Amino acid sequence: MTLAQTHPLHAHGTHSSRLIRALRGERPETTPVWFMRQAGRSLPEYRALRVGTKMLDSCFDPAMASEITMQPVRRHKTDAGIFFSDIVVPLKAVGVDVRIEPGRGPVFNAPFAAAADIAKLTAIDPAIMDELGEPIWEGVRRTVAMLLEHGGSDGVAATPLIGFAGAPFTLAAYLVEGGPSKDHLGARALMHTDPAAWEALMTWTAEVTGRFLRGQVLAGASAAQLFDSWAGSLSARDYETHVMPASRQALTHVRDLTYVIPADSDGTPATERAVPTIHFGVGTGELLPLMHDIGVDAIGVDYRITLDEAERRLGGGVVLQGNLDPAMLAAPPAVLEAAVADVLQSGKSAPAHIFNLGHGVPPGTDPAVLTRIVELVHAAQ
Amino acid sequence: MTLAQTHPLHAHGTHSSRLIRALRGERPETTPVWFMRQAGRSLPEYRALRVGTKMLDSCFDPAMASEITMQPVRRHKTDAGIFFSDIVVPLKAVGVDVRIEPGRGPVFNAPFAAAADIAKLTAIDPAIMDELGEPIWEGVRRTVAMLLEHGGSDGVAATPLIGFAGAPFTLAAYLVEGGPSKDHLGARALMHTDPAAWEALMTWTAEVTGRFLRGQVLAGASAAQLFDSWAGSLSARDYETHVMPASRQALTHVRDLTYVIPADSDGTPATERAVPTIHFGVGTGELLPLMHDIGVDAIGVDYRITLDEAERRLGGGVVLQGNLDPAMLAAPPAVLEAAVADVLQSGKSAPAHIFNLGHGVPPGTDPAVLTRIVELVHAAQ
Repeated sequence: MTLAQTHPLHAHGTHSSRLIRALRGERPETTPVWFMRQAGRSLPEYRALRVGTKMLDSCFDPAMASEITMQPVRRHKTDAGIFFSDIVVPLKAVGVDVRIEPGRGPVFNAPFAAAADIAKLTAIDPAIMDELGEPIWEGVRRTVAMLLEHGGSDGVAATPLIGFAGAPFTLAAYLVEGGPSKDHLGARALMHTDPAAWEALMTWTAEVTGRFLRGQVLAGASAAQLFDSWAGSLSARDYETHVMPASRQALTHVRDLTYVIPADSDGTPATERAVPTIHFGVGTGELLPLMHDIGVDAIGVDYRITLDEAERRLGGGVVLQGNLDPAMLAAPPAVLEAAVADVLQSGKSAPAHIFNLGHGVPPGTDPAVLTRIVELVHAAQ
Repeated sequence: MTLAQTHPLHAHGTHSSRLIRALRGERPETTPVWFMRQAGRSLPEYRALRVGTKMLDSCFDPAMASEITMQPVRRHKTDAGIFFSDIVVPLKAVGVDVRIEPGRGPVFNAPFAAAADIAKLTAIDPAIMDELGEPIWEGVRRTVAMLLEHGGSDGVAATPLIGFAGAPFTLAAYLVEGGPSKDHLGARALMHTDPAAWEALMTWTAEVTGRFLRGQVLAGASAAQLFDSWAGSLSARDYETHVMPASRQALTHVRDLTYVIPADSDGTPATERAVPTIHFGVGTGELLPLMHDIGVDAIGVDYRITLDEAERRLGGGVVLQGNLDPAMLAAPPAVLEAAVADVLQSGKSAPAHIFNLGHGVPPGTDPAVLTRIVELVHAAQ
């Protein structure tokens, strides 16, 4: 691990933003809110910008990726931007041949299912990303500059950017299947049929995704979220034995990165803190304590269990993010308002709560509903 | 509800089979075992038989459906047959236009998403199934005759047939989306956007699937399993409010059907029992107590949680079915054997245990592995 590197953006004030304060376990007067997949197909300005550009090309175009990241921040006045990317971007950023098929998802030319294929894949040195990832880092730098100009949602701080990376298991699930699958059986079987090949794949993937996250933080992201989208397909035992070590390993790449809370006029000296991390997966109610134990500051909770039940399972004292069911987004206003109030109430069980959906924004969402939710959360006491 | 109808097959001995005894809460000397989706693509004899016949046509062909149901019983020596069918068969059996696209699943000409579409659908009288379902009932009758000739796995009783039906929510999820979907968002949203239309749809679907199950039992099935494949996409609150009543309603169609345990030579008088029911859904660890509360004899447990954890959540005293992870099926023999032993050990927490997978048999499974598992379970002490 390198020496601690102090984070540049915090000099601009995100250390006092609602999001970063909540991630420190403080309770800002107003609950911060953002939405997973807020940048994307629910926004007409996104669909207009993307015409004629393929998904992965847009991720590697710094002007486009930064503009797309900014769109929901401007429109909804969310308390954070989430860097526009895709789960397979870090793989492309080390030279793996992958494309995204509309309506299907990431597809590789051939699955990495056999030990020989995995050996070829893991022969790629993940360090190559530091160079090949330059369009991503530039996208982050531009976004951070735009967010600074945009200002903070509370009129004081700059709006923080959250870096995005898929967790090793979720990446491995795509790699082993060669594309999307329903229950990730190929990956889940490989860990039992060939544990050595599986471990090699996970170790490599952890390096790739860890470097991807580190690059975003070094370029100015104020926090980092690890998305283990498919972890919910695992039993707790398989998660703990065959997945958790790699997720922990991925996070070591950002653990030495810190930011500074400046000295206060009342004499409180400046303090240095690690850049905060969030961990989320779909349908992971059974795995929350393990997902927390990889060493993160906050746990994202899917809509299936309530936040107070999540807090109970975590043993208390853990910052939570979540968890309005996306199925509520088209409900009549009174039903939606009651659901938002329920989530806010349940979130009071945690030391701090970051409001979000319990899953990504569905593409068909009416963006006005998201704007309304931000208003509701910000108006709540 | 009609008067109790005594079940014909039990005169032939399935009342003393391992499966039915376990479903009564007894512990037979040998743990019964069968596999969800045991009849199907994992078997070469199935693939040969299906050449040139579409999925739904095979379900409505009594000779073919019964032969397919028998194939795994003969090959693996399982303790039960599960009637070969598909989740949408009861819909076709009331005249709904549906087809199954290979590699995709059930597809309707148009989704039943708006109140007007649902009104048109629910105008179909479910009672029409009693007549249109005749090819299904005939398939069951033929299967039961073949199972009687086949004999019981333990050399004493006949092998029992389990009737198959999808639960109302899982059927509704397909209907509202017009086909398969990843997170069943259409159905989950409808229950909040238009609760009246949702309730009408669920009430109708409960009648359809309940009659489908009843028809199979009247034709000779010894038990009935309700598959709520997609219930795991629901929060406990939505399940309880918007789904559970319809599942309970579906089961009222078999609740009055009974079988007789003959008088014993030691003087125990003959007793009449309700035909036993099993309830299963994927990823439903959070919902088990509610799924039990609809009034079933056994709960099928998915592979994500252990059987002893399931028993703990159910409060004890509930017969369990499950739950070897299909991801183990390709593992080296020693790993597989240890996993089977683990499931058997964990199943000892329940009053009785029916061994099964924690999900359906994957199409690519080596059938020899399934035969081996039956041997392992039957040899276990």
